[in-house]
Amino acid sequence: MITGKNYIGNLLSSIGDITFQTFNPKTNTENTAVFYEASTIEIEKAAELATKAFQTFKNTSGLKKAAFLNEIANEIEALGNELIETYCAETGLPEARAMGERGRTLFQLRSFANLVSEGSWLEATIDTEDLNRLPIPKVDLRKMLVPIGPVVVFGASNFPLAYSTAGGDTAAAFAAGCPVIVKSHPMHAGTGELVASAIIKAAEKTNMPNGVFSNLNSSGIEVGATLVKNPNVKAVGFTGSIIGGRALYNMAAERPEPIPVFAEMGSVNPVIILPNAAKNNGINWAKTYASSITMGAGQFCTNPGLILGIKGTDLTNFIKKLSEEILQIEPTCMLHPKIIGAYETNKVKMQNQKGLQTTANFENETSQNYGKQIITTVEGNTFLNNTTLHQEVFGPFSMVVQCENFHQLEEIISKLEGQLTGTILAENGELMAYSNIINALQNRVGRIIFNGVPTGVEVCPAMTHGGPYPASTDSRFTAVGVNSIKRWVRPFSFQNWPNELLPSELKNENPLGISRLINGENTRKPIN
Amino acid sequence: MITGKNYIGNLLSSIGDITFQTFNPKTNTENTAVFYEASTIEIEKAAELATKAFQTFKNTSGLKKAAFLNEIANEIEALGNELIETYCAETGLPEARAMGERGRTLFQLRSFANLVSEGSWLEATIDTEDLNRLPIPKVDLRKMLVPIGPVVVFGASNFPLAYSTAGGDTAAAFAAGCPVIVKSHPMHAGTGELVASAIIKAAEKTNMPNGVFSNLNSSGIEVGATLVKNPNVKAVGFTGSIIGGRALYNMAAERPEPIPVFAEMGSVNPVIILPNAAKNNGINWAKTYASSITMGAGQFCTNPGLILGIKGTDLTNFIKKLSEEILQIEPTCMLHPKIIGAYETNKVKMQNQKGLQTTANFENETSQNYGKQIITTVEGNTFLNNTTLHQEVFGPFSMVVQCENFHQLEEIISKLEGQLTGTILAENGELMAYSNIINALQNRVGRIIFNGVPTGVEVCPAMTHGGPYPASTDSRFTAVGVNSIKRWVRPFSFQNWPNELLPSELKNENPLGISRLINGENTRKPIN
Repeated sequence: MITGKNYIGNLLSSIGDITFQTFNPKTNTENTAVFYEASTIEIEKAAELATKAFQTFKNTSGLKKAAFLNEIANEIEALGNELIETYCAETGLPEARAMGERGRTLFQLRSFANLVSEGSWLEATIDTEDLNRLPIPKVDLRKMLVPIGPVVVFGASNFPLAYSTAGGDTAAAFAAGCPVIVKSHPMHAGTGELVASAIIKAAEKTNMPNGVFSNLNSSGIEVGATLVKNPNVKAVGFTGSIIGGRALYNMAAERPEPIPVFAEMGSVNPVIILPNAAKNNGINWAKTYASSITMGAGQFCTNPGLILGIKGTDLTNFIKKLSEEILQIEPTCMLHPKIIGAYETNKVKMQNQKGLQTTANFENETSQNYGKQIITTVEGNTFLNNTTLHQEVFGPFSMVVQCENFHQLEEIISKLEGQLTGTILAENGELMAYSNIINALQNRVGRIIFNGVPTGVEVCPAMTHGGPYPASTDSRFTAVGVNSIKRWVRPFSFQNWPNELLPSELKNENPLGISRLINGENTRKPIN
Repeated sequence: MITGKNYIGNLLSSIGDITFQTFNPKTNTENTAVFYEASTIEIEKAAELATKAFQTFKNTSGLKKAAFLNEIANEIEALGNELIETYCAETGLPEARAMGERGRTLFQLRSFANLVSEGSWLEATIDTEDLNRLPIPKVDLRKMLVPIGPVVVFGASNFPLAYSTAGGDTAAAFAAGCPVIVKSHPMHAGTGELVASAIIKAAEKTNMPNGVFSNLNSSGIEVGATLVKNPNVKAVGFTGSIIGGRALYNMAAERPEPIPVFAEMGSVNPVIILPNAAKNNGINWAKTYASSITMGAGQFCTNPGLILGIKGTDLTNFIKKLSEEILQIEPTCMLHPKIIGAYETNKVKMQNQKGLQTTANFENETSQNYGKQIITTVEGNTFLNNTTLHQEVFGPFSMVVQCENFHQLEEIISKLEGQLTGTILAENGELMAYSNIINALQNRVGRIIFNGVPTGVEVCPAMTHGGPYPASTDSRFTAVGVNSIKRWVRPFSFQNWPNELLPSELKNENPLGISRLINGENTRKPIN
């Protein structure tokens, strides 16, 4: 079923010269399907089709968009085992993970379908006219959110389903009314094509305009760069490395018409273990964190790469226990030889930093491409004075920083770059005493966790996945949960517009029965 | 009362070497007060103080922020006539305008006070835990909006009160919980200092932290550039020219940590006059538009600089009448010799474009610095092929484009740059027939107006003031109305956080009684 071709709108296309294959890291061999990288002509065609499709898709009702999103979910389910097998063959991840991620992807699509089938999310706001107001009459103004235009979504290497082809960014953009062009991730191009075929089928079944979706293969950075520079593209969603995300952000900012880029990038997700937590519960936390650090071979954006505590016996014991526990865990396969290559390089780079000690280093033989976990430790002063130590090592790696005192701990936190998450491990009542540390941590993160692990990102309205740069390029938005739709919409006002020509959401009679803010009052009532 | 000094936090400071004076365009003489441009040391000090102030200001309750905002309004009122006189002496604008703008400024401050005294705007969202969920328990997540950090606000030349020192951007940032550093506009530095003194008094009276506000004088671009590059600054608000706004946007995007810039920039605010409107009501529209084009000497962001119609007798008659009417209007004083200088240069530049005809050109003698209105016209083809004709001429200038047909009109609209507003003048029933033109116009603007004028920006929740680039640098936000607060906040989530340490907005008992989204339901109820 995998053709290796691009979807330029509804049509398969392969006019380019560059081809590539995906790789099975578990068997350490190339997969057989041959993929055709999208050519410049195909990229431009996809962008033109998207702009054309936008003219009708932007006015498509919430119920029709919901039908489209639900049908995508159904079609992905209908791909059945072929999708799971392709996913596993292209990532080295286990079947259970593939199925879990598929479930999450379907849940996201259906969540957005639910959101847009009821129109209250559009923030319909009406201020009615007042002809008697002095010194001048008040006009009638009605505002709602409208889609921003075609969105380019970059597939994420570490989430081939939930943050790639029909993942969170795509689902949010469709829900908003924006056509999507996916720059498929080269490591899972087959998974991408299968999901793309499901989207195309759903688009055809639900009568969406041709061009509402395209899927472009790529083996390097060129396809993505060409897309971001294309004047028909109006926004970008990206999940990946800081270098990649920042490069796209820069390109978008340098366009004659700059466009928003929401890039969810690196994070070391600092964890602070407070003294009583280390003392009374250090052994349990060590077990829990050994598991969190190695989960998915450490390939989650929220992997805890940095643990901070106050130097002393309790922290020493915690490090010892964490090191013992993590060595009990069997390493697992990483996504790609390139990923494990970078992991090994970064591990060595860290180990070469002055003052860094390795307290656990899995050295038993494993199959090829397995990520061997490592725990390191460093003094607070050393960490403060060497920003290389602040960088993310993507993989099952964590560093424990032994701070001199709370003042130093606070200083370290306040000097960290922006993070997706921050975690505090504390015993009852202990938290209250460290408000300055919590305050400092809140400044640096998008989500703060009490006595838990940062891995595991719940998909729900109260989730924030994003944070100060470089956790994301725009901390004002989340990439997870239905509020992520706000990245792809803009407010739009109608002044004195004839009622019969207003969108349903803003008509006097409120035919959709949505919640609206009318003259300052939230109500579902019509206007008489 | 005007000292010419900067406010670095609560203290007046003047350690720099560069001084300048403001100019009275009506008397064509310099005003006497001497202003000290902020030095690099003062800029850094202001930014450091703002960061320090942020640590307490960000946790200040909505009621206390409301008291601060209301007190600013009171203190501005208490400035009395000195403010009005200074405003007039620094702008050449009439007293009635000064008083109207002051009223608007007070209204904005009080609107934000109202907004934040009730906390529902914070979008408090709670998803409670579910320990029985399979395969893993669901954590407790609670989200709300938090301030982004210190904001730099650039005063606008054309709105010395409503979009400068204590204008919309500042009021929104304070309401959000962000300290503000104002880069005062050099043309009205005295007005700026007076308003700054009111803010400082209000801050002291309501016990706001020192550094919550600073006011920096500048005579050129250096102070602003230094501020935007300062790592303590986390966001920027700007109203002004495309060149200025884009330069700041670029600087912010090139920082090691890029920050959001909301720049509200140029716009020609296209007006489409449909055939029956031109035929049946052209004379009235000509009168109305003669007045709108010359309002405030054409110095509004929403000035109608471009009128589009279909070539023919009715449009010719409209142009004739508009030209006659506009010559009946007495020119008024522009803001500054630099502004009128640019106006004259741009007028001549336009008149030198091939195919442009001038149909009205006020040539009677006036006092110095008065903006003499001009109406020009051009064929659709000529307009399409010369993008110089698409540029804004800031002042009482408008261009009527005579399109060959509706196809050309639609093409012209779709090729326009982004605009704040678009207007359609139409007779009953006529609008329905031109849905493709309305559709094209909606793509290019933030607000669409039926049978009215774009000038006059109502301050209310349903207003959108912003639009596709270059109307603004980020069309996802409005610069007017209480929703403009969204520019300066980011979502933040607490996971499994102890109830007693949560902000009031997220506590189980809902002590503030605000509206919250709890497990998908909007409610003011507490959680049991």
